[in-house]
Amino acid sequence: MHPHRFYTLTASCPDRSGIIARVAGFIAEHRGWILESSYHADAAVEPVETRAEAGRYTMRIEIRADSLPFHLAEFRERFRPIAEELGMVWKISDSAVKKRVVLLVSKQEHCLYDLLARWQSKELDIEIPCVISNHDTFRGFVEWHGIPFHHVPVSADNKAAAFAEITRLFEEVRGDTMVLARYMQILPPELCAAYPGQIINIHHSFLPSFVGARPYHQAYQRGVKLIGATCHYVTGDLDQGPIIEQDVIRIDHSDSVDDMVRYGKDIEKAVLARGLRYHLEDRVLIHGNKTIVFR
Amino acid sequence: MHPHRFYTLTASCPDRSGIIARVAGFIAEHRGWILESSYHADAAVEPVETRAEAGRYTMRIEIRADSLPFHLAEFRERFRPIAEELGMVWKISDSAVKKRVVLLVSKQEHCLYDLLARWQSKELDIEIPCVISNHDTFRGFVEWHGIPFHHVPVSADNKAAAFAEITRLFEEVRGDTMVLARYMQILPPELCAAYPGQIINIHHSFLPSFVGARPYHQAYQRGVKLIGATCHYVTGDLDQGPIIEQDVIRIDHSDSVDDMVRYGKDIEKAVLARGLRYHLEDRVLIHGNKTIVFR
Amino acid sequence: MHPHRFYTLTASCPDRSGIIARVAGFIAEHRGWILESSYHADAAVEPVETRAEAGRYTMRIEIRADSLPFHLAEFRERFRPIAEELGMVWKISDSAVKKRVVLLVSKQEHCLYDLLARWQSKELDIEIPCVISNHDTFRGFVEWHGIPFHHVPVSADNKAAAFAEITRLFEEVRGDTMVLARYMQILPPELCAAYPGQIINIHHSFLPSFVGARPYHQAYQRGVKLIGATCHYVTGDLDQGPIIEQDVIRIDHSDSVDDMVRYGKDIEKAVLARGLRYHLEDRVLIHGNKTIVFR
Amino acid sequence: MHPHRFYTLTASCPDRSGIIARVAGFIAEHRGWILESSYHADAAVEPVETRAEAGRYTMRIEIRADSLPFHLAEFRERFRPIAEELGMVWKISDSAVKKRVVLLVSKQEHCLYDLLARWQSKELDIEIPCVISNHDTFRGFVEWHGIPFHHVPVSADNKAAAFAEITRLFEEVRGDTMVLARYMQILPPELCAAYPGQIINIHHSFLPSFVGARPYHQAYQRGVKLIGATCHYVTGDLDQGPIIEQDVIRIDHSDSVDDMVRYGKDIEKAVLARGLRYHLEDRVLIHGNKTIVFR
Repeated sequence: MHPHRFYTLTASCPDRSGIIARVAGFIAEHRGWILESSYHADAAVEPVETRAEAGRYTMRIEIRADSLPFHLAEFRERFRPIAEELGMVWKISDSAVKKRVVLLVSKQEHCLYDLLARWQSKELDIEIPCVISNHDTFRGFVEWHGIPFHHVPVSADNKAAAFAEITRLFEEVRGDTMVLARYMQILPPELCAAYPGQIINIHHSFLPSFVGARPYHQAYQRGVKLIGATCHYVTGDLDQGPIIEQDVIRIDHSDSVDDMVRYGKDIEKAVLARGLRYHLEDRVLIHGNKTIVFR
Repeated sequence: MHPHRFYTLTASCPDRSGIIARVAGFIAEHRGWILESSYHADAAVEPVETRAEAGRYTMRIEIRADSLPFHLAEFRERFRPIAEELGMVWKISDSAVKKRVVLLVSKQEHCLYDLLARWQSKELDIEIPCVISNHDTFRGFVEWHGIPFHHVPVSADNKAAAFAEITRLFEEVRGDTMVLARYMQILPPELCAAYPGQIINIHHSFLPSFVGARPYHQAYQRGVKLIGATCHYVTGDLDQGPIIEQDVIRIDHSDSVDDMVRYGKDIEKAVLARGLRYHLEDRVLIHGNKTIVFR
Repeated sequence: MHPHRFYTLTASCPDRSGIIARVAGFIAEHRGWILESSYHADAAVEPVETRAEAGRYTMRIEIRADSLPFHLAEFRERFRPIAEELGMVWKISDSAVKKRVVLLVSKQEHCLYDLLARWQSKELDIEIPCVISNHDTFRGFVEWHGIPFHHVPVSADNKAAAFAEITRLFEEVRGDTMVLARYMQILPPELCAAYPGQIINIHHSFLPSFVGARPYHQAYQRGVKLIGATCHYVTGDLDQGPIIEQDVIRIDHSDSVDDMVRYGKDIEKAVLARGLRYHLEDRVLIHGNKTIVFR
Repeated sequence: MHPHRFYTLTASCPDRSGIIARVAGFIAEHRGWILESSYHADAAVEPVETRAEAGRYTMRIEIRADSLPFHLAEFRERFRPIAEELGMVWKISDSAVKKRVVLLVSKQEHCLYDLLARWQSKELDIEIPCVISNHDTFRGFVEWHGIPFHHVPVSADNKAAAFAEITRLFEEVRGDTMVLARYMQILPPELCAAYPGQIINIHHSFLPSFVGARPYHQAYQRGVKLIGATCHYVTGDLDQGPIIEQDVIRIDHSDSVDDMVRYGKDIEKAVLARGLRYHLEDRVLIHGNKTIVFR
């Protein structure tokens, strides 16, 4: 967290020698001031003799906006040839442009209260253009915060229409990120596919343990000594998307399923908040079914 | 840990009212001094009106040996009628009688060094009548500690003979507990069945995730953010026995499988040592495929 | 957490043999059904031969209300002679009588949102008769929940009057517990003394490190690798009261004081919620300047 | 951990724009292959307009040895002008040259067993030219590993001579790092001053809590709910040196001081091993009384 406006460049490309020099050299040429930078080379580095492009190189660089003599559009223009030369997938974002995050909730309060608390104190410096729910439970609470609330009921009969409406709302408010804050509904594969790396879920188990429904009941049956939560990107494969963040909490034989649900809520909201923050700060890069998280 | 000799009574029975009163009353009658006691009622308590015996009641009581006017044999004799009345499964052990623990190891050093360090400082106040291994790697190290070492090679051809020899050695030294300290061989089902609740394994994953071989490779592929270890009783179902203790450690995208193996060793030895200690202090009661651990 | 109404007996007395038998015997005599029970003997047990009353024995017992043939008043009447005989300090509470908890807050939102989320979902099954603050910041938020809000400004000039008003409000609503949910004002010693074991604070450091003001700045200066929070009873000695619960979170060199404040909020609210819950469930017994917490 | 030989460059200098470009540019010029690199800018960055050198910039870069057309001596020669231009404090080490680590121990076994286990399995790929102790307790154990053992008794009378002898031994074996593995003696200030950033201690508390003697007794008295350990560089100020690593473990009211000592051993050895590894891999840079740890 910096007091100044900054640009965040994230990029990945085939590994080779000279990548940092090329990118940092470009920035230095224009007297850009690097506030923070992180680099990661995939383990699968090929023999250096062949300079084979087997490994993948990933980076994240924060540059003070006022240190550069031009704005983002010109940065993009000037950086493009370098990115092409290096075979990069890349993007750059501006800390002055707030991300637009749409929350989907159901009847559980913990993640919603937690995220709105962070939003109202500007700890999460985002726009929440609306909250969508399949129940009307939190309308008053959300609207009291000055945030529009949309009740979109989901039933066996109206699934297609309901998710079409959710998609329409997300598009209408130009959402960047959709957060399933214990939404409890399975998104249709087309919706997942339409927003790769933009939909974040919190699953109430330490994945890959206890995939699917009622993970705390599964955990209780198995007699595990720790329970957890997993924040991950949503893909068409249920509970299989790239993991952003996880954590666990200790339980023991005296804890009932209800106790586990209660402890779990504390882990769920903490893990979701951390994972979402990493995502919003462009700290998460997806590589296949895994993530690189530059904390 | 008490400075005085004590007896440890562990018992379970169908839940009803008056159990503690009956057991504690018996002890008090003989002026027995309770040092520590723990009780657990299974969640499934039936309506009190019917006094149905649905739930299971479990307890562990430490009594100062010198507070009782008789010894263990007489305690057993006198307590038996109460236990029968309550339908108890029970046992009582004497802190002055050291448990006899046989270690099975392979070529990895971490659990072996860790357990022998605890043994030599009397933190683990046990007898180690012998160490058995399918490799000769640690003969010198074990023998230097004055502990007999048996090299019992295991191959596809000699499995039955090898495990018969291990069973013979365990019986010969009158072992109480067999510890698979990263032994890396799968015990035959008959051996598991012969010593229920007496064989302890450390598995190098947070079960039920990553059952079977090469769990760190599985964890690397899935991209989890924490890895763990599980100490459990060995049953005929591989990696499915009752869990005694688990723990995890944080990793990130920069960690290779080798790094995970290295971190994992620290968790494995800590979890095994804690789980084994609970077992040796009669703090673990098995109930179906789960454990009650009175820490 | 039990689905049935229950009574919670907490007691402490000089250690001797036969305490559990006496208390559990009394309960069994009336066919009382014990749902959960915990016992702790202080380490300082004197030689058993002398039966000296050096150690302190502490217990907590939950009894199903509908298993007893009488109500709380009669329980108290009948139990009194036993308690006197054993030299007990004791009390018994009824799960059907909700505790009345008054929250004191300032301008930070995290503990307030967290506690109200738990209250509205009945995870914390309490009454919140009012929230008191030295700022008007959260009036709307609190009142939206249907809870009265009192703005009692505190300045160098009006301290005595302000705390007199707070005391009056607490008395008026018949408060059981006062929670300083990041209240940021030091209570006068008389107020602390008037409600021993009834005022709970969350301090933003891992006590006894970083007592007093600006603990995160102190932590930053010292270069610690973990920061923490402490939930404790308030006494006349600032930050010195009996500790109920603590926890920590990992930081590193890249974290500024602002980052630490942000991470700290997550630990503070979790530790306060856990500590408060233990207190409300009568799981915390104070012994000198320490606590016994029967989790 | 890389399978290939590599050089590790660590450096710090006043912050300005273009540092990474300059250093990475030099490496790229010679086709050096960067395996891993980390950078940190101190929070105190001055307004960019003035380019004032207020903040401190720190970095660590691993370069594959076989990717460079020259060896370390020539690297040093060629890099020197750049380092001077940037005002750098810097060094470069070679992964093929094992660090020489002298262990100082007393009568506690846990850190010694733990470090020798890691050494014998090459997890810690170091030389241990000797172990020094003020007691003869572990002579046999150390010598069995083929490591020379020196018994240097320390008493009130012979302190100066004893530490002179320790210094002589350390010099004689050309030690790089001295590890106080629960050595329990206070080093004289001159010895601390002679080897800044080279002497590592494990303190058995979560500093700055419980400085000095008998920290577990202090923790017991205060009634804390977590205990910890701290790995730090030794300076002339007792327990005040730069902290490298810390961790904690949960305890409760039932734990005696002896229990805390026992739990503490597990944390001490884990924290020492982690901190030492960071140090040996040149991941720790000292800045004033704090450390930057590039994990």
